[in-house]
Amino acid sequence: MKQISINKQKISLNESLDRITASNIISNVNIPSVDKAAMDGYAIVAEDTFGSSQNNPAILEIVGEVGIDEIPKIIGGIGKSIAVATGSNMPKKTDAVVMIEYTNVQRGDLQIVKPVVPGQNVSKIGEDVKKNQVVLKKGTRITPYDIGILAALGYKNVEVMQRPKVAVISSGDELIDLGEIQKNAKIYDVNRHMAKASIIKSGGDPIDLGIVKDDFEEIEKRMKQAISISDIVVISAGTSVGEKDIVPTVLTSLSGKNKLIHGVSLRPGYPTGLIVIDETPIVSLPGYPVSNAIAFRVFVRPLIAFFLETNENFEPSIKAKLSRRIANSGGLRTFVRVRIFMDKNELIAEPIMASGAGVISSLTRANGLVVIPEDKEGIDEGEKVEVRLLRHFEA
Amino acid sequence: MKQISINKQKISLNESLDRITASNIISNVNIPSVDKAAMDGYAIVAEDTFGSSQNNPAILEIVGEVGIDEIPKIIGGIGKSIAVATGSNMPKKTDAVVMIEYTNVQRGDLQIVKPVVPGQNVSKIGEDVKKNQVVLKKGTRITPYDIGILAALGYKNVEVMQRPKVAVISSGDELIDLGEIQKNAKIYDVNRHMAKASIIKSGGDPIDLGIVKDDFEEIEKRMKQAISISDIVVISAGTSVGEKDIVPTVLTSLSGKNKLIHGVSLRPGYPTGLIVIDETPIVSLPGYPVSNAIAFRVFVRPLIAFFLETNENFEPSIKAKLSRRIANSGGLRTFVRVRIFMDKNELIAEPIMASGAGVISSLTRANGLVVIPEDKEGIDEGEKVEVRLLRHFEA
Repeated sequence: MKQISINKQKISLNESLDRITASNIISNVNIPSVDKAAMDGYAIVAEDTFGSSQNNPAILEIVGEVGIDEIPKIIGGIGKSIAVATGSNMPKKTDAVVMIEYTNVQRGDLQIVKPVVPGQNVSKIGEDVKKNQVVLKKGTRITPYDIGILAALGYKNVEVMQRPKVAVISSGDELIDLGEIQKNAKIYDVNRHMAKASIIKSGGDPIDLGIVKDDFEEIEKRMKQAISISDIVVISAGTSVGEKDIVPTVLTSLSGKNKLIHGVSLRPGYPTGLIVIDETPIVSLPGYPVSNAIAFRVFVRPLIAFFLETNENFEPSIKAKLSRRIANSGGLRTFVRVRIFMDKNELIAEPIMASGAGVISSLTRANGLVVIPEDKEGIDEGEKVEVRLLRHFEA
Repeated sequence: MKQISINKQKISLNESLDRITASNIISNVNIPSVDKAAMDGYAIVAEDTFGSSQNNPAILEIVGEVGIDEIPKIIGGIGKSIAVATGSNMPKKTDAVVMIEYTNVQRGDLQIVKPVVPGQNVSKIGEDVKKNQVVLKKGTRITPYDIGILAALGYKNVEVMQRPKVAVISSGDELIDLGEIQKNAKIYDVNRHMAKASIIKSGGDPIDLGIVKDDFEEIEKRMKQAISISDIVVISAGTSVGEKDIVPTVLTSLSGKNKLIHGVSLRPGYPTGLIVIDETPIVSLPGYPVSNAIAFRVFVRPLIAFFLETNENFEPSIKAKLSRRIANSGGLRTFVRVRIFMDKNELIAEPIMASGAGVISSLTRANGLVVIPEDKEGIDEGEKVEVRLLRHFEA
């Protein structure tokens, strides 16, 4: 019996960028590990400097120095000073550092012209990270800075979620693959390639199962293979819900008890199908590339995040002013492609005119998406809208 | 003589996610390649349907059908109709499609109950993408949707910029590498690991040249090696500008005519060094991890983008209200780490208290950065600020 969950795996810290932490990561040490000098200067006892000034410097004996890579053997105390560099461990019986700028060495002795208080210019043990503190929460998408803190803690490896395996199939007699010669009325398969890249972006591991003809047995066989080797299956069905669209029939036949949901309140993306077979979520995406892309965002991306046990679906958004009214028809959640740009210090979102979901060029012309909820008939010209950013834009 | 530029390379479309296009990409075909049916139904001559209604249907002969993967042999004309599916090539002498919903078949003839105008329900040749049109501009960071449109055009390969090679070195007697046992006052090297991940994020190819001791000859030898194999060199120097910081001396000695810039108006990040040796830009980053990270953003990232010939340094930002005043001192551009969160429907940016640039945990606690320009003494509590997003945040 398959499990609807993903294993954890230990990987090298240097391979962990953008992976998802599998558990809370705890600090095993204090950073700094001991009190350290935070400035170049002299470690002293603070009270020795009280009342010192340019005209009345405190005068201390210089009893040694501590390099930044050594454990101090020398011990301080009243009347004594020890040269330290930024990062040196503080010698015993010292409690502050006088910056080198406020000292002079005269005949071998140290003159201090400005007082310091206890603790001044010292990084206290655990000041940065405390032992047993959670430094990264489970479900974090690891950034370069997270790699930095894990390196500081000496973690050579880090436990992350395995990438969910997502099988990708395209169906349709009309489809040919890249590299094939176009003949008759064949068209190149778009959806598989787009889906594979979107799966990688979402943290999944795509398995390309190619193109399958509009044939019950062929689709059934490919679907069984997909279910046996993956955590999620994504099949892009035909461009219509015509008689040739056999995918729903196959899914219904393969499923025992679960019923296929076919048709969702989404535009574009209405002809999406959803079912679970052998504990494997299957998403049948519409054939038209734009419908396909939108339905992927709405259904496949959250599924991948579910397996990764994270909610870090990092999609930045921005507010912009709508350049003209966009309408919504009854009860559908509508995704409108927009182009945002700066006009007189104001961000404008311009809906992209595109007749039909087939107009794939609208996805490359767009740099954002505006969502109209099911219960709204439209958004008026001039309204401020939330735009989900699809790509870089020039501000 | 080295060149300050990067070659182009042809790679598989399926490997091209997040790479940078090396030239404008032109469509070699029209999409659609010919007029196509945009709905399931019948291809007809529109004028045959004029005046038709539920009570007075137009009646046409059904002369054949066109599958979506075939070139139509059958020809239409006045009085004729041909069954088509969404995506079928339009047969000759037809100019519109009647949706199947507005037809009935009676005794082998087609009844049409609603008129269509010429061109209705037809995707015209080149409607989506025109032949010779620029579909992706040079310098575009390739998204899944861009992969989609290139697949639609049948491009199996795409020409992208090679990744600039960025050599990474850390210097310091106090540093040990991951996997080594911590002894004396040694600390784990943070900066190299953080830099490698940031280089990948920026589109570069990191070359790890490890840790080098605070020794003139060693640093000089490693630096020469770095220059000989990379386009950019990043060296993380000591934590201070103390007597042991030999990197500036080595850089000055290696350079013939170019002078080292050492010390920039940046906080944190002041002790940054910049020089070009043998046509290779060298950035000497401060040793403190936070200074290191900020100076990387300010100097290394744009250098990588320069080699990639792109300005797509995609850094989303968001407006938020500052929760308390942040001060700036004379003439420095200051990067303040903030934590943004939603409070009563308002985004708040809370500056993270962190004493000193060494507090690396502030970079993982922060999810944004606020920049105070050189000419501003601070930003007041309650002011709206632009926050550059470092990571996901819960809204």
